[in-house]
Amino acid sequence: MANMDPIPVRVFSLNCWGIRYLSKYCSQRYHMIGDMLCKEKHDIVLLQEVWSEKDYLFLKKKLSCTHPYTHYFKSGVIGSGLAIFSKYRIHDTLLYRYSLNGYPYMAHHGDWFGGKAVGMAVLSLGNLTANVYVTHLHAEYNREKDSYLAHRVVQAWELQQFIRHTSAGADVVILGGDLNMHPQDLGNRLLRSYTGLRDAYTETAKFDGCEGGVTLIADNPFISKKEIFPFEKGIRIDYVLFKGSSRAEIRCDSLSTTKGSVADSPFPYSDHEALTAELKLDSCVSAEAGKDEAFKTPDSSAGNLAELVDIVTEARTEVKVGLHCAERMRYTAARTGVMGLALLFLELVIAAVPWFALGAEQPFPQTSFYLLAALCFAILLTTSLLYIFYTIEIKSLQGAEDQMRLAVGSLHEKLRGFPVTQPHSASLRSPEGQDPPALDPVE
Amino acid sequence: MANMDPIPVRVFSLNCWGIRYLSKYCSQRYHMIGDMLCKEKHDIVLLQEVWSEKDYLFLKKKLSCTHPYTHYFKSGVIGSGLAIFSKYRIHDTLLYRYSLNGYPYMAHHGDWFGGKAVGMAVLSLGNLTANVYVTHLHAEYNREKDSYLAHRVVQAWELQQFIRHTSAGADVVILGGDLNMHPQDLGNRLLRSYTGLRDAYTETAKFDGCEGGVTLIADNPFISKKEIFPFEKGIRIDYVLFKGSSRAEIRCDSLSTTKGSVADSPFPYSDHEALTAELKLDSCVSAEAGKDEAFKTPDSSAGNLAELVDIVTEARTEVKVGLHCAERMRYTAARTGVMGLALLFLELVIAAVPWFALGAEQPFPQTSFYLLAALCFAILLTTSLLYIFYTIEIKSLQGAEDQMRLAVGSLHEKLRGFPVTQPHSASLRSPEGQDPPALDPVE
Repeated sequence: MANMDPIPVRVFSLNCWGIRYLSKYCSQRYHMIGDMLCKEKHDIVLLQEVWSEKDYLFLKKKLSCTHPYTHYFKSGVIGSGLAIFSKYRIHDTLLYRYSLNGYPYMAHHGDWFGGKAVGMAVLSLGNLTANVYVTHLHAEYNREKDSYLAHRVVQAWELQQFIRHTSAGADVVILGGDLNMHPQDLGNRLLRSYTGLRDAYTETAKFDGCEGGVTLIADNPFISKKEIFPFEKGIRIDYVLFKGSSRAEIRCDSLSTTKGSVADSPFPYSDHEALTAELKLDSCVSAEAGKDEAFKTPDSSAGNLAELVDIVTEARTEVKVGLHCAERMRYTAARTGVMGLALLFLELVIAAVPWFALGAEQPFPQTSFYLLAALCFAILLTTSLLYIFYTIEIKSLQGAEDQMRLAVGSLHEKLRGFPVTQPHSASLRSPEGQDPPALDPVE
Repeated sequence: MANMDPIPVRVFSLNCWGIRYLSKYCSQRYHMIGDMLCKEKHDIVLLQEVWSEKDYLFLKKKLSCTHPYTHYFKSGVIGSGLAIFSKYRIHDTLLYRYSLNGYPYMAHHGDWFGGKAVGMAVLSLGNLTANVYVTHLHAEYNREKDSYLAHRVVQAWELQQFIRHTSAGADVVILGGDLNMHPQDLGNRLLRSYTGLRDAYTETAKFDGCEGGVTLIADNPFISKKEIFPFEKGIRIDYVLFKGSSRAEIRCDSLSTTKGSVADSPFPYSDHEALTAELKLDSCVSAEAGKDEAFKTPDSSAGNLAELVDIVTEARTEVKVGLHCAERMRYTAARTGVMGLALLFLELVIAAVPWFALGAEQPFPQTSFYLLAALCFAILLTTSLLYIFYTIEIKSLQGAEDQMRLAVGSLHEKLRGFPVTQPHSASLRSPEGQDPPALDPVE
């Protein structure tokens, strides 16, 4: 490949909805996906929710000619569900597991069981090094009363931290996946403004797909209206994001999505629509020397920094709200556990009375005694497990909040380097409608 | 600070052995540690095994004047035990949890309960950016028959991956901690050769400490001879490692360790010896432009690459051995579970007989019936949990092995770029005494 020619890179991203025996037409859809990928020959294919390794191996075999390089990100019992197929050699991969991912007892939501993570693969595209990320964040089940908001914000925080810290050596960065966030949601703003990643949908001049770029649509037969209510036209939660560096430029020539159906097929590939982005990479020959500071916080103008402070502060507030909830839940678990223990103690005392007053009759029928004891033990076991679980949740939320406090402190210090008469200094107020969290002095 | 003057950086590392109520003289030792750190005023203090947040907060308060910037890495129920105190502002932190860390049922070893991880902090040292890492790997309890070897190798692998991928934007890298590996152990070689990190002990001209730099010594009253057998003089498992970049040079002027006792005190700071490294940082003015490829694999000569292939292949073999063990254990768990189920089934059948043959007597005394049923349930629960646990272990080992295979493939390709007549091509043989694992063609 000539050094000066722009490198075209076609990136594909799809949430495959691949829960064996539960997702509808799972195996037929994998056959369709495999056929399509074989035919389309994208350069980089990023898949999510490939929960079964068998399905991954099926695709691997099917795509062995078109996509010789591939990696399945293993994690937890079920796996991360993340897979990457590439025409280009994958030099290295790394998986980062998010510290929070819902609650095990919300089994009907199921997110906790899949080890949500972000996978990274280092590829050589011509003479450029690309860090390609694929991820899938916790789903949003109820937008009005979103009990997973803090978890998703922490995931978005960890995602931007991971990308920012691992991409300094890359010429270009590409992220594809199901973020489960609307374009202007807090986590999404956090991700984009901290990393400088640009959204293929808003960046491209040529878009072919559903109105507004939505990827969860009412026209998809696997989607119930309830899932996307009140957004009748659907919601945009799947993304291809990208950014260049001082050593390479990247732009999106076109973006297309599927539209809820596949020609000559009775059903679509998945419940999500698939994204295909045509990117163009240009290496900058006269890259400036030394470290690429701008790469880390893309536009370090005072205005942008102040906006970033706003967003991180908003995220911190959400994490604090989540922390408060988790602490309350842990307290409830502890209280219930103590009540279970008291009940067990009471039972033992009552049962022990006849032992001491030898003449008295045993007041407990034996079966009731065993059943009550079993109930007490069940309560103790459950509340102990919940207590441990909430403790882990609290630690993770505290950890994220600590990191955010450090980040705000560091951003504030950078801001102090700018003339104080900037109009943007006013934007240090906290987001509307929220109690302004005190910015503690950084430790 | 003048741009051209070398920046002196004193780094301190100590495994604090801070298990409340279990470690001897825990609170007295924290007082001693706090006093010493206050007096010594190191630039960067890296602590491990600070298991209690209360102890961290005690140190934080005590060091608030000398070390205004600090971070405690929270993770899991107990935490990671990792803490950093710094004279310089910490801009950002990130925690990476290792995917494997021993077995929960080896409660007497306890490693599983502490969330072993590597913590990273981004610091500004003068005009330089330093990525400082602190970590603590799984302990080695029996060198002859080390059942945790695969886990420690995977941890070392993940550690080098994390450092390599997050440090490309840093001018200097400093790692301190308890690696629980001897200097020439596989994981240590893997870490050093892949990241290019240099060992302060071997690099410095001026060393003051125990012979051989050992940090677990027989003279320490908290150490039993058994722990370090057969190494009578002790073992070196705590390290300060460092590397520079094309933008900065780093050297170690001197290294010192404690020697098992503290003047005017009846006992030492910990069961490990403390390390103090005096580093000198020099920014390179005429840094070459563009990306610092050499930063990633420090010396990409054919010889070094071939050595790296050897080491990664050796690590892969160990991981495969671990995988084999884990699969065997999972099989045993499954078999025991099936036996428990069969026993329960048998019991129910025997108990059900009188129901059908109405005249027959109940063959089971009620108490025995309940006890046996409880036993069966306990077997089923335990084996199910073990099965899930081993499945996670297997997935993690497979994940690490997949990454290693990719890495070997990528290294091989780089090697192919060199003239084939290199004498080092012979070093592609596998390490002595081990069955050479076939290098599958990279996916």
